[in-house]
Order: sequence, then C-alpha cells, then structure tokens
Amino acid sequence: MPHLVILYTANLESEIDMTDMCQEMCKTLLAQHDDNGEQIFPTAGTRVLAYPAPHFAVADSQHNYGFIYLNLRMATGRSSELHEQVGQALLNRVKTLFDPLLQKQHVGITLQIDEGVEVFNARHSSIYPLFSPAA
Amino acid sequence: MPHLVILYTANLESEIDMTDMCQEMCKTLLAQHDDNGEQIFPTAGTRVLAYPAPHFAVADSQHNYGFIYLNLRMATGRSSELHEQVGQALLNRVKTLFDPLLQKQHVGITLQIDEGVEVFNARHSSIYPLFSPAA
Amino acid sequence: MPHLVILYTANLESEIDMTDMCQEMCKTLLAQHDDNGEQIFPTAGTRVLAYPAPHFAVADSQHNYGFIYLNLRMATGRSSELHEQVGQALLNRVKTLFDPLLQKQHVGITLQIDEGVEVFNARHSSIYPLFSPAA
Repeated sequence: MPHLVILYTANLESEIDMTDMCQEMCKTLLAQHDDNGEQIFPTAGTRVLAYPAPHFAVADSQHNYGFIYLNLRMATGRSSELHEQVGQALLNRVKTLFDPLLQKQHVGITLQIDEGVEVFNARHSSIYPLFSPAA
Repeated sequence: MPHLVILYTANLESEIDMTDMCQEMCKTLLAQHDDNGEQIFPTAGTRVLAYPAPHFAVADSQHNYGFIYLNLRMATGRSSELHEQVGQALLNRVKTLFDPLLQKQHVGITLQIDEGVEVFNARHSSIYPLFSPAA
Repeated sequence: MPHLVILYTANLESEIDMTDMCQEMCKTLLAQHDDNGEQIFPTAGTRVLAYPAPHFAVADSQHNYGFIYLNLRMATGRSSELHEQVGQALLNRVKTLFDPLLQKQHVGITLQIDEGVEVFNARHSSIYPLFSPAA
C-alpha cells in the first residue's frame, strides 16, 4: 500500500486522460514527506488503478453528469495530520486536472481515504527488490 | 454519498439491461424518505456504478452461474431502522428486475450496506450547485 | 460470501490466464476445511471476480510494472488461525501461478482479507438451492 482505486462514469473517458491522471496521482503520493523529510509511502508499494464504469446513474439523470470517486487505502495507524496532508495534496491535484472540465460539464468528485483494517496481509513482489537498500 | 457499486459476472451482460438497472437503483435511493418526510439522500450525491467482471468463478463452476454483488456505501451514523428500510427497498427492486432471470439461470445476488469510516473525505462538484437551495 | 475481488493492471492480461486464475482461487477457497473436517465456506456463496484496470500507475513508472491486488471479504467473527490458513492457502496458489512471470517482469502482488462489517446484508439466489441439504 497505498492503493488508490479510481471509479468513474465512462462518459468521462473521452474528456480526461485517465492514464495521465493515474501517473499524476502516483507522483503526488510519492512526493509526500513527513516532518523528518522522509518519504511517507514506499515507492514500490504505491499503486493507482482506474476503472470506467460502462453502466451508471448519477443524481436525477437529467444531464450528462459525470462522477469520479477516488478511494485511497493506506495502512492503519497514521496520524490525522498525515491523512489531511495526503488528502489535500491529492485533492489539489485532482482539482487542477478537472477544473477545466467542471466548467463545461456537471461533474462530481469525491475523494476518501480509508485505513485498511485487514485481518490478513501478504505481499509477494519482484518490484520491491528494485527499491530496497540492498538492491 | 451514497455510492452504490455493482460488481457482476459478465455472463449477465446480455441478460439484464444494466444501465436501466443503475437508473432504477438510483431512483429507489432518491425515493427514500425519513419519518419527517425528508429525502434521506442528497440528489447530487447519489451515484450508481456497475462493472461487469470479464473473468470470474462462481461456486463449483459446473453451471453457467451468474453473480451480482451490490455494495452501498453511505455515511456513518444512521439508525439501523434506516439501514433496514434502504436495504429492503433496494432488495425489493432488485428482485423485481432479476426474478425472471432467476427462473431460467442459476444466479446469486448479494446486497450489503457499509458505513463509510473514511479518515479523510472531500468533495468537489459542479453537480451540487444545481440542487442547492441557492441555485 | 466469501467474495474474492481481484484488481490488476491490464498489462498482465496477456501474461496470465485470469479466468483460469479465478477458478483456481475459487477451488482453493472451497478446499479449505476446519479442524472438524467441515468445509469452511459454502459452495454456493463462494465467488471470484477479476477486473483489469485499463489505466494505472505503479511505483515510479520507470518499468513495465505489473500489479495485482486480491481482496477477500468474508463474514466477520472467524478466528485469526482461520484467517491465516485461508490467506496462506490463497497466497501459495498465487505464487505458483505467478512465479514464472515474476522471473521476467517486475510484478507486485498484494493479498488482503477483510472482515465484512456491513450494516445490512441480504441474499437472493437460485444457486443456493442446488447445494442445500434438501436439494
């Protein structure tokens, strides 16, 4: 972790470059540092996945509404200050990417951060070794 | 919120009009009122997204089983009576839409409501102003 | 339940037979037994859905990284020993399926088990009757 999963109405597919958006979100996560100047999230564990929904309904369906939902799942136990920092950083980046679209289409954006409370957690990777100190 | 995310096996794609289903689910959510006659969910915040899974396995895979999972995420703190009211309303609508199919195919339907326990929550929208009192 | 939802970067689509993977995961879940020799999960309630993400970003995006996330949601209240048993069984199966790929591509695998804490839960099914004692 962290994992950012983005769910959105497929009518946004032609309006926003979602692969670019994933990369921008990923860079934003990796750019976060704590008070000691340490990178908050491990590079190898930072992932963003985006899924257009081919079927959807938004609000009263009276306009060609768009909706995008960003859900970040991170490990539990971080401070509320860190949650706020990360959330605001992502939100600011999203606003920059979407504000031109919001001027011409009715689009809703929701960003939430969940703490994972999994009862089992395992990792198997040929990415982590690239970023480990011994690599 | 609320957000209803529907995950289903792609073999149901040709059997059910999922865009219609999203609209019916959305209407059902907007039709819910509390004891004071107030609409429970904000129109602008009500969204339904449906995703067919191109790869899947259900039960013992001995038949062309279908599966549909409806997960409603709503804000935390509502009463259990409200959860029951909303859940039953959605379930009844789903049954009406799916019962003809269940007569001819083995299909499982699961509907769950989660309370969001996010540690960060932000919204940015050009839909909400359409429905605000000042609009 | 249980429901296993698999999210993965679409660049793995040509590398791994994901339908086969879903079936292997489903079989692994059904093969789990408790200390009394009873099957842990109901056959009719065991479902696996897999979704390739058409847009994604992983780590520093400097290689053709792949990522696969497996999230198992099961009913709450089972023992930590059972969580460990099920998690390890799934992980071992995933490793067997993916280790050849991990030798040639940088791929990250994360497997987590969540306990569902839904506030409403309903089921409607024409699969369960096939597996009920009275069937």
